[in-house]
Amino acid sequence: MASAKSGSKRRSSKRPTKSARKTRKHVFLFSRDGADGGRDDKNLLGGKGANLAEMCNLGLPVPAGFTISTEVCRWFTAHDKTYPKSLSAEVDAAMRGLEKAMGKRFGDAENPLLVSVRSGARVSMPGMMDTVLNLGLNDVTVEGLATRSGNARFAWDAYRRFVQMYGDVVLGVKPREGEEVDPFHAALDALKKKRGVATDSDLDADDLRGLVATFKRIVKERTRRTFPDDPGEQLWGAIGAVFSSWNNERAIAYRQMNGIPGSWGTAVSVVAMVFGNTGATSGTGVAFTRDPATGEKRFYGEYLMNAQGEDVVAGIRTPMPIDRLAKSSPQAWKELQRIQKLLERHYRDMQDLEFTIEDGTLFMLQCRVGKRTGFAAVRIAVDMVKERLITRNEALLRVEPEALNQLLQPVFDPKEKARAKREGRVLTVGLNAGPGAATGRIVFNTKRAEERAKKGDPVILVRVETSPEDIRGMQASQGILTARGGMTSHAALVARQMGKTCVAGAGALDVDYAKRVLTVGGASLREGDWLSLDGSTGEVIEGKLETRPSEVIARLFGRKRASTKKSAIFDAYSKIMRWADQARSLKIRTNADQPDQCRTAIGFGAEGIGLCRTEHMFFDGEKIDAVREMILSESTAERERALAKLLPLQRKDFEGIFREMGTRPVTIRTLDPPLHEFLPHDDKDVRALAKEMGVPVERVRAKIEALHEQNPMLGHRGCRLGITYPEITRMQARAIFEAACRVAKRTGTKPRPEVMIPLICTARELELQAREVRAVAEDVFAKAKLRIPYLLGTMIEFPRAALIAGDLAAHADFFSFGTNDLTQTTFGISRDDAGKFIPLYVEQEIFEADPFARLDTAGTGRLMDIACREGRGARADLKLGICGEHGGDPSSIRFCHELGLEYVSCSPYRVPIARLAAAQAALSAGK
Amino acid sequence: MASAKSGSKRRSSKRPTKSARKTRKHVFLFSRDGADGGRDDKNLLGGKGANLAEMCNLGLPVPAGFTISTEVCRWFTAHDKTYPKSLSAEVDAAMRGLEKAMGKRFGDAENPLLVSVRSGARVSMPGMMDTVLNLGLNDVTVEGLATRSGNARFAWDAYRRFVQMYGDVVLGVKPREGEEVDPFHAALDALKKKRGVATDSDLDADDLRGLVATFKRIVKERTRRTFPDDPGEQLWGAIGAVFSSWNNERAIAYRQMNGIPGSWGTAVSVVAMVFGNTGATSGTGVAFTRDPATGEKRFYGEYLMNAQGEDVVAGIRTPMPIDRLAKSSPQAWKELQRIQKLLERHYRDMQDLEFTIEDGTLFMLQCRVGKRTGFAAVRIAVDMVKERLITRNEALLRVEPEALNQLLQPVFDPKEKARAKREGRVLTVGLNAGPGAATGRIVFNTKRAEERAKKGDPVILVRVETSPEDIRGMQASQGILTARGGMTSHAALVARQMGKTCVAGAGALDVDYAKRVLTVGGASLREGDWLSLDGSTGEVIEGKLETRPSEVIARLFGRKRASTKKSAIFDAYSKIMRWADQARSLKIRTNADQPDQCRTAIGFGAEGIGLCRTEHMFFDGEKIDAVREMILSESTAERERALAKLLPLQRKDFEGIFREMGTRPVTIRTLDPPLHEFLPHDDKDVRALAKEMGVPVERVRAKIEALHEQNPMLGHRGCRLGITYPEITRMQARAIFEAACRVAKRTGTKPRPEVMIPLICTARELELQAREVRAVAEDVFAKAKLRIPYLLGTMIEFPRAALIAGDLAAHADFFSFGTNDLTQTTFGISRDDAGKFIPLYVEQEIFEADPFARLDTAGTGRLMDIACREGRGARADLKLGICGEHGGDPSSIRFCHELGLEYVSCSPYRVPIARLAAAQAALSAGK
Repeated sequence: MASAKSGSKRRSSKRPTKSARKTRKHVFLFSRDGADGGRDDKNLLGGKGANLAEMCNLGLPVPAGFTISTEVCRWFTAHDKTYPKSLSAEVDAAMRGLEKAMGKRFGDAENPLLVSVRSGARVSMPGMMDTVLNLGLNDVTVEGLATRSGNARFAWDAYRRFVQMYGDVVLGVKPREGEEVDPFHAALDALKKKRGVATDSDLDADDLRGLVATFKRIVKERTRRTFPDDPGEQLWGAIGAVFSSWNNERAIAYRQMNGIPGSWGTAVSVVAMVFGNTGATSGTGVAFTRDPATGEKRFYGEYLMNAQGEDVVAGIRTPMPIDRLAKSSPQAWKELQRIQKLLERHYRDMQDLEFTIEDGTLFMLQCRVGKRTGFAAVRIAVDMVKERLITRNEALLRVEPEALNQLLQPVFDPKEKARAKREGRVLTVGLNAGPGAATGRIVFNTKRAEERAKKGDPVILVRVETSPEDIRGMQASQGILTARGGMTSHAALVARQMGKTCVAGAGALDVDYAKRVLTVGGASLREGDWLSLDGSTGEVIEGKLETRPSEVIARLFGRKRASTKKSAIFDAYSKIMRWADQARSLKIRTNADQPDQCRTAIGFGAEGIGLCRTEHMFFDGEKIDAVREMILSESTAERERALAKLLPLQRKDFEGIFREMGTRPVTIRTLDPPLHEFLPHDDKDVRALAKEMGVPVERVRAKIEALHEQNPMLGHRGCRLGITYPEITRMQARAIFEAACRVAKRTGTKPRPEVMIPLICTARELELQAREVRAVAEDVFAKAKLRIPYLLGTMIEFPRAALIAGDLAAHADFFSFGTNDLTQTTFGISRDDAGKFIPLYVEQEIFEADPFARLDTAGTGRLMDIACREGRGARADLKLGICGEHGGDPSSIRFCHELGLEYVSCSPYRVPIARLAAAQAALSAGK
Repeated sequence: MASAKSGSKRRSSKRPTKSARKTRKHVFLFSRDGADGGRDDKNLLGGKGANLAEMCNLGLPVPAGFTISTEVCRWFTAHDKTYPKSLSAEVDAAMRGLEKAMGKRFGDAENPLLVSVRSGARVSMPGMMDTVLNLGLNDVTVEGLATRSGNARFAWDAYRRFVQMYGDVVLGVKPREGEEVDPFHAALDALKKKRGVATDSDLDADDLRGLVATFKRIVKERTRRTFPDDPGEQLWGAIGAVFSSWNNERAIAYRQMNGIPGSWGTAVSVVAMVFGNTGATSGTGVAFTRDPATGEKRFYGEYLMNAQGEDVVAGIRTPMPIDRLAKSSPQAWKELQRIQKLLERHYRDMQDLEFTIEDGTLFMLQCRVGKRTGFAAVRIAVDMVKERLITRNEALLRVEPEALNQLLQPVFDPKEKARAKREGRVLTVGLNAGPGAATGRIVFNTKRAEERAKKGDPVILVRVETSPEDIRGMQASQGILTARGGMTSHAALVARQMGKTCVAGAGALDVDYAKRVLTVGGASLREGDWLSLDGSTGEVIEGKLETRPSEVIARLFGRKRASTKKSAIFDAYSKIMRWADQARSLKIRTNADQPDQCRTAIGFGAEGIGLCRTEHMFFDGEKIDAVREMILSESTAERERALAKLLPLQRKDFEGIFREMGTRPVTIRTLDPPLHEFLPHDDKDVRALAKEMGVPVERVRAKIEALHEQNPMLGHRGCRLGITYPEITRMQARAIFEAACRVAKRTGTKPRPEVMIPLICTARELELQAREVRAVAEDVFAKAKLRIPYLLGTMIEFPRAALIAGDLAAHADFFSFGTNDLTQTTFGISRDDAGKFIPLYVEQEIFEADPFARLDTAGTGRLMDIACREGRGARADLKLGICGEHGGDPSSIRFCHELGLEYVSCSPYRVPIARLAAAQAALSAGK
């Protein structure tokens, strides 16, 4: 409701185009004589209205109509479902114009004008809002339609459809509890059964006339209202219903998922009906100017003769491939070919078209830039450059960086997935947190996930939420499913870095660790049962679905390298990436802490590591024992003994990474998370640990208790640990520099370590930690008789660090913005707990977008700007980068480009996305 | 160690005074001929060295000596206990000067010069560091001393004392495990036993000679080193020991407790010995120019004839009141009178003096501004104005605002407390979080605390830590004791607001809720046992100690109003407060949410409420039931029903407050804490609640589980609740405005409500919440046919709010800085978890002070400055205030004055402190 109110309040800020604003009108006509407005008026007329107007301006055959603007929707929502005073007269006038254009009259007994009433928002929200067709029919006009068309069955079928649709959409006749279908469908089925026929088209005019009467009786029974016969009353009912549908549950949910503000509103287009179902020379269809799935340059689509649009969608009759139209309706086909080519040239992009053929005459009902898969987006962009339709830079700007995801992720066989859907095996839909497709056996904890994976079983790790101690389990799994947490929860973040499929925050799940059972809706799945996750859609599917690596991955990482067969998609991907690298100035690094992640990232084009989290290594194998021993130490001496055990293990980790990265820079962050994350939490594990360490259980328990924190995010972690226990920092520094020296000696190539101190909030912290690191470096270099050039810098992840950047720069060679924590503290919002209100906040336009997904420029961004300016002011050669999750987000990358950062760093699988986004940022700079 | 290193690095920034810097010397002489440096050189010479120099400059009788600067201490610590090259020559030269001034020679067999080697930091750290007396004695010089003094017993006693002190301090001879006293004392006691005498003074010269030999043998045995005979070696050993003592555990702990940086270092003063123990005409004493306890203008102190300084302290002989000296040593008394008056006039403040009389001649050994109680501070300041020694403004600047605390808090009978100490009943010392004295029976939870209090038992609530659900228990208690949490923990914060005694973070406590037992050290106390807390010192004392309200409280709040007896302290307090009110420009409000707190605050001079926390009321009586019902609601309708029950209860709360506050402004914050704080957490209470509410236990458990947050500080709370459940905000607004209308009608006085929205981080949040509040206000006013002028504003408590202050100002009449949360998020530090590292951070100068106690100007303060400038830029009449805990901290109040805030708000008992601090801020402005 608040969002609705906001509409009226905010209206003043949404400016219609000049012409519209001047006249201050609410209703915009379009017809073959031209139109008010055009393609640029989407905000006011919605996408559908704007493009209908544009087609009219191009002189294309469009049934006349008019669009009621989105401003009216905002008024309607804010004023208790009423309209601006002048609207009624405007609509009346528009109807007169429409009648004139079509040569028919609304409500006329002889030659009645019928209309459709359609929704259309600024961006397409397919199927979310309502539409009413065939409006204007009543017991009188139906006879006129029958006479004029010479087809009584058609007329009564149109009437029957109208009553059904109006009854549902406007009058709210829905299935009651216990009813499987709505009463209209039930009556239709009953009649077919009675007549012993299989399809609707086997019913004759009289059957349909009887059905209209039945339908009207149903309306009366269910709504205690008589079905309106007056076409004017019908029209206003439909307009109100379409405006109301902007705020139906479906639409709100869709907006929340897609970050569309509630204040945008929908337009309503009232369009003269043309009929594809008047007989054998009529038909209707949808088409794309290129293949939306592959991007291949071929006119693609399907149609049905003697049908209305809804029949194409409903799937009762099987539509025909579009090219058959050349035979069945050659004139219309020729015209359609002319139009589709014209529209693609005009819009300079692939178009999605809807058309109807009425008695051999083609009418265009809609055109819009066609949605496409990532594959198609890349291929179309590259092809259009070849065709000289667009420039390389335009091609780069044309591909949504996120779309590249699809090219990289494993895929389910589409047929298998469709079958699973039909069989009702889609259990729930969570957040599409880590794209890809994964199938495996359910396991509820890390240890068992590893065990099963070792045996060769594919595993899906299912957790209420994950924590760093689940890292190995996640690594061992094909996919991760969590019941809690958002798009930037631990599970989502780590999964994306690992390139793992992840569905997060699937709230409908009920996970019982003790019984090892997962319940969702009615279904119960046990550990070991098969489960499949579609990380691109968030679908959680019961059972096993086959997956395979994508074409691009297969080519990039060698399995198909030998193949000489040309791959259109791989060629297009390679071209776009090459062009992007030429266009961008930002460097792209990756967040990685394992050699295999390094290899992947380099394959994707990473130019260095922007964030290597040393603590991830701590969970690995025997390291965790030494880490726990360190934590349980009660004196510095004890701690140093435990650290001495860790040193060779950490050194080996770094050696592996340095080898992979060669001369690329490697930014290594010293220990960051609070120590309690490394200790077990359930009683059994605590006992086992105590036994293993040979210390009393009570001591372990006491330590866990002592380390407990109210707000661990703001607790004793990061450099605060390094200050309290400088011996930890020293051990890590020693591991880094010894590893660098060894690799340099063995390979002849000097690694480029960059040591990064986390969670700094005062210059003195950095000074003290830097002193420890530098002293160790000198010691190692002296012993190795070798110097490795290195940088020492700090993360900027608390507001205070940004505010004292000038002081920090005195001790730092570089800053790296840790925008996850910086956003958390700037907003005072914990990522882990934000899921409860962020979707609502986006819907109500409190946030433009989830600030953990897209950098907030006014707050977090302002702090970054302060830090950049004052840091550089104090030290001109200060290097600046970003290693928060935002480093992989296109809109945030643009902001980083504007700040003049040297690089962004993101998870390996996002490197191609970042490369493209960086190119787009460079191309759009200053715009 | 890090702190030590920092010394050398930071040295450059600590500038000695001009003259000292010019010469770049390390050693500064003082004698009757004058001195290098004076009272302003405390940073370089330490307090003791600077004042000895000053007394020399005044021509007072001071034994000659020299001071080695604090810079040498920093060098010493940073360079592995070595000295700057030039030091040795400088010390040699100074010794020559000293010999000349005293007419004796160091190490001379005939007329040996003896010296004391003393520590002296910038601020007094009594007893924390080491001192060596009588240095320069060996088997040769002792004979010279004996001959010269004609007193062999004295000489050997001095020698014996020297070996003992040097052995302990420099050579490290301490009691071994199992030994009750050190071996020197043991040997002394053994000898006395052997001789059959009671006191040291009954031992003769031969006994003492034998004891010296025994002591040297002990040194040899314990240290494997021969006791050094060479006076030069003795001297350097002592200098090194004193410098080292800067970093002994005691000193570090003291510095952490008092926020003294480790880098300051100590100076070492080497002073020629004069002896108060050469016979009946000698003596030694300490004195204050006024009574340090009451402030009464009388020369106050005590002395011992024939004694060394340590004897006065040791308490073996009972010292005499100072005025007896007039008889026992009239010449010295006369001189002392002259000097004490001169020094008080010279320093224009009460002085603390040490002196020695050697054979009838007076020597001054130390003078410094005397420490005093809060009572004395106030009275002395006021008296000195009367005496025209200082101005009113100087008087205002002279009283430490915190000192006023003592005037307001209940007190223990000092004699009873001394006895408790003697009896070893002081169990531990925690943080002095809520000043005052409290005694009562131990209770471990809120419910039982209330029950016992109802029966009339005084109660001490003991918790590991407190949470908002303990509020009623705290209210019912005399004092609160917690094992965890710092000076700004929940317990501390609420206790101070309530004016309750509180000792927080007493880490030595072990609290077992299940067994209802408190263990500390060896002692176990059960629920119901008596316990006493001294909130001014942090002492936790076993048993019952009597308390009484302070004189000022008794007079302010009427119990003694009838009394016509003049009260010096109350008069002085009233005067200082009146002068403060005349001097300050900041207004002082209070944080209060109960009528009785309002009354108290007004009594203390509060001019309004700056923060009324509505959630505190929620815990009260039947309200908590309705609150829980609201939280357990599963629909808006259910929630509204629960809120309807809450409405009259909240309204009544506000009525009570408005009545008390009259026309003073009352800032009311809408609901702030996360909802889970209102639900019970242990299983029994959960069951009880479910039964009471008539809902399944599972539903309550599920709700608690659903409300659980990783980082509640950054979770779903504040306006985020108001956005999600606008009906809560509406209920609270209705309660506020209906209460205001009722009070206006009944009393004829219109209250001045100011509605404050918490945790804002976007302008839209404020816009939406403001719309709800304003709509309710209009509705209430229309129904009441009465308008109450009110303000609507926001807290600024997240960095983002400060950064978008310009946008917020469009929707706000005022900003109130919530600096607790703002500090937390600016630093990324949770108050609740910070206790683990903040003391270390202060010691290592990472923080200048605990940022939760004193506003950090570079970070938090910079954000406040941005918010003030940009807020006022957008709206010139924007009102600005602060309601965080910093509002009661003098140094933070000064910063608020500089920002130009309209008011500060603090807990009722801090109002007088804030009044004085605000006056000091106004007087120091621009300095």
